[in-house]
Amino acid sequence: MTKRIGLFGFGVVGQGYYQIAKKQKEQWIPDTIVVKNKFKRRPSDIKFSYNPQEVFDKNPDYVLELISNTEEAYQYVTEALKRGITVISANKKLLSAHLPELIQLQRVFGGKLLYEAAAAAGIPVITNLETHFEEDNIVALEGVLNGSSNYILSRIFNNGLSFSDALRLAQQKGFAEDDPKFDINGSDVASKLNILCLHAFGKFIGEAHIPTFGIQHLGEEEIALAKSLGLKIKLIAKAEKDYRGISAFIIPTLVAEYNPFHGVENEYNAVKITSEHLQEQFYQGKGAGSLPTGAAVYGDLIKAKNGFGYNYSKVNFDKPLEEKLLNLGVRVLIKSKSESQIESVLFSPELNQHIDGYHFAVGKVKPKNFNRLNESGEVSIIALPDDLSADQISEGLNCAQNAEEMV
Amino acid sequence: MTKRIGLFGFGVVGQGYYQIAKKQKEQWIPDTIVVKNKFKRRPSDIKFSYNPQEVFDKNPDYVLELISNTEEAYQYVTEALKRGITVISANKKLLSAHLPELIQLQRVFGGKLLYEAAAAAGIPVITNLETHFEEDNIVALEGVLNGSSNYILSRIFNNGLSFSDALRLAQQKGFAEDDPKFDINGSDVASKLNILCLHAFGKFIGEAHIPTFGIQHLGEEEIALAKSLGLKIKLIAKAEKDYRGISAFIIPTLVAEYNPFHGVENEYNAVKITSEHLQEQFYQGKGAGSLPTGAAVYGDLIKAKNGFGYNYSKVNFDKPLEEKLLNLGVRVLIKSKSESQIESVLFSPELNQHIDGYHFAVGKVKPKNFNRLNESGEVSIIALPDDLSADQISEGLNCAQNAEEMV
Repeated sequence: MTKRIGLFGFGVVGQGYYQIAKKQKEQWIPDTIVVKNKFKRRPSDIKFSYNPQEVFDKNPDYVLELISNTEEAYQYVTEALKRGITVISANKKLLSAHLPELIQLQRVFGGKLLYEAAAAAGIPVITNLETHFEEDNIVALEGVLNGSSNYILSRIFNNGLSFSDALRLAQQKGFAEDDPKFDINGSDVASKLNILCLHAFGKFIGEAHIPTFGIQHLGEEEIALAKSLGLKIKLIAKAEKDYRGISAFIIPTLVAEYNPFHGVENEYNAVKITSEHLQEQFYQGKGAGSLPTGAAVYGDLIKAKNGFGYNYSKVNFDKPLEEKLLNLGVRVLIKSKSESQIESVLFSPELNQHIDGYHFAVGKVKPKNFNRLNESGEVSIIALPDDLSADQISEGLNCAQNAEEMV
Repeated sequence: MTKRIGLFGFGVVGQGYYQIAKKQKEQWIPDTIVVKNKFKRRPSDIKFSYNPQEVFDKNPDYVLELISNTEEAYQYVTEALKRGITVISANKKLLSAHLPELIQLQRVFGGKLLYEAAAAAGIPVITNLETHFEEDNIVALEGVLNGSSNYILSRIFNNGLSFSDALRLAQQKGFAEDDPKFDINGSDVASKLNILCLHAFGKFIGEAHIPTFGIQHLGEEEIALAKSLGLKIKLIAKAEKDYRGISAFIIPTLVAEYNPFHGVENEYNAVKITSEHLQEQFYQGKGAGSLPTGAAVYGDLIKAKNGFGYNYSKVNFDKPLEEKLLNLGVRVLIKSKSESQIESVLFSPELNQHIDGYHFAVGKVKPKNFNRLNESGEVSIIALPDDLSADQISEGLNCAQNAEEMV
């Protein structure tokens, strides 16, 4: 039986979806494709519409929402869900902002909303949280969730590029958004972690409440330090749950070779899930790109066709969905020109070193201070592995400084 | 609505399942548990039955088959499927031997058979092949699929243990079967690869037709060589598909640090899936243990309750399910006391070296010769990374030999 499919958007993801549908099964080619810009050059063999209403006039079985504008996406997705239609979305900003309402609309009107591509592109992490882990108690979820930041870090660590050269290359390769701010300041990761927390813990945190420190202030000193210790830096999103509640934050992190994120390079994403029974699982796959992301959208459509939908089984619908995060200290290396800035946030100090006009300190920082530090632009923080001592860091800093002086 | 569940077997997996069900939801505690041995010590608070028929007399909704005896498992599973019951099995030997018939029984009688725990214990690889990858074209599937072999290799490479000491430790830890032969000779891996090939490529190879070389003949020389090159050895199962057909085999393999299997240690399993659209994905998780394996069985039950079943979407039911493997040469390092034995299997030679009474050669070997070599007990083969040259191997062999002489 032929199904009617309406597609909003024909950007990187929409084109990937279209290419796959055309190759796999004619029935999954959208009968309406709505785009916004009439003057953009597009394939001449595809008929485009500029009228969003046309999708709904045709009574679609499925709506694919693959645009970037959050407000318009909200209109289309809520309209479709109110009609009980199955919707596939890849729009992390939309989902992260409106998940509670979008879940409610599914429950009231009987439509379905799937969005595997929104969290880690090609990696089926939401599907697995909703099936394999459905009745397992998840205690931690960690991830490398931004392909662009990770590509930049790979170029810095594996090819010796400067931050700005690495960023330019990421943009040329199409891994970074036009405005790369949301990639490198961690805001894109916060949207994804916010979505994943709902499926892992059944709670809605709200991305504005997730303490976020990006990679944009990563200095040469920290990079040299990591290299001298044989470690890498990855932008890690981390969420944990225990009897006290949920902790979650995003922070550049020193990772040792034994850490599975150590080997996650370039535009790859990865997620590590720790649960009570299945214990530790690690998934790695493409976190960007037209085909992998389009394939995740296509995969959602096939899953929906087979009757699959998210059960949100971790959610207790008799209680508020919203939850406040814990604010437990994270052990970090902090660098700043201002010693008083460090003193204002650091506790349990282990190290205090002064090199080349910078103060370096090791100690704990409360996540609620991350965003303020991130925005100040004059400070860098990096989370540390438990087994890396302050002495090793001190030696590493001296060693990195000497290496620099020898250049 | 309460469902009736019959459980066959109360070994490591059955106990793991029971423990999880008891903690999660009373409704998933089996109402009948059939065991064989009346004289084995068992928990006094659980009622056991010794009569398999009792399970069927109670008209169960679900049958869990978690025993090791293949013939008895075949009786219980086919009986249940003929009654249209949903069956969960963790019995790789049963499934590998009888999948074509078991698929047919599902199609004829409308029952379902799920068996995630049979292929890589806790890792949801079959579920993902059947959902996320359902309409993607899989071109390669590789895995570390035997936790016991991998545990032994970890002890050899990370702790300097001898093969026999490492095997003894694996048995003490409960990772190796009572008769460890099937773990270390690759036969257990062949069962799993055979099952995975059906879900990845839609073809039944038959485990007896999968060329298999285990780790039991791994000598000190190859281990020293790997260490001197900064590489590790992993027992890798590999299947590939191209326009000519399917290749599949199991062989100890030298892996470099950039290979994601390099970091898979101890009782962990891992699977790498390469497909046309999603491209490269890598999953790692516990490949043994009561809770992770029991959780995979429990997960199957929850998936089945939600309506999930395998679609076998890669299978073309109008064509024979059985397929013969291609027999393309694999580039290996081969070691033997007999030069003529090497000459009888090696082609495209790149290296021929004589050290301490052994002949070492690099070249290609057809997989159809693996089993014969494996059984001869006097030869070792290891697959090589493409970028490792014969010169590097020659240097490595000399280096390993010198290191030994210095001891």
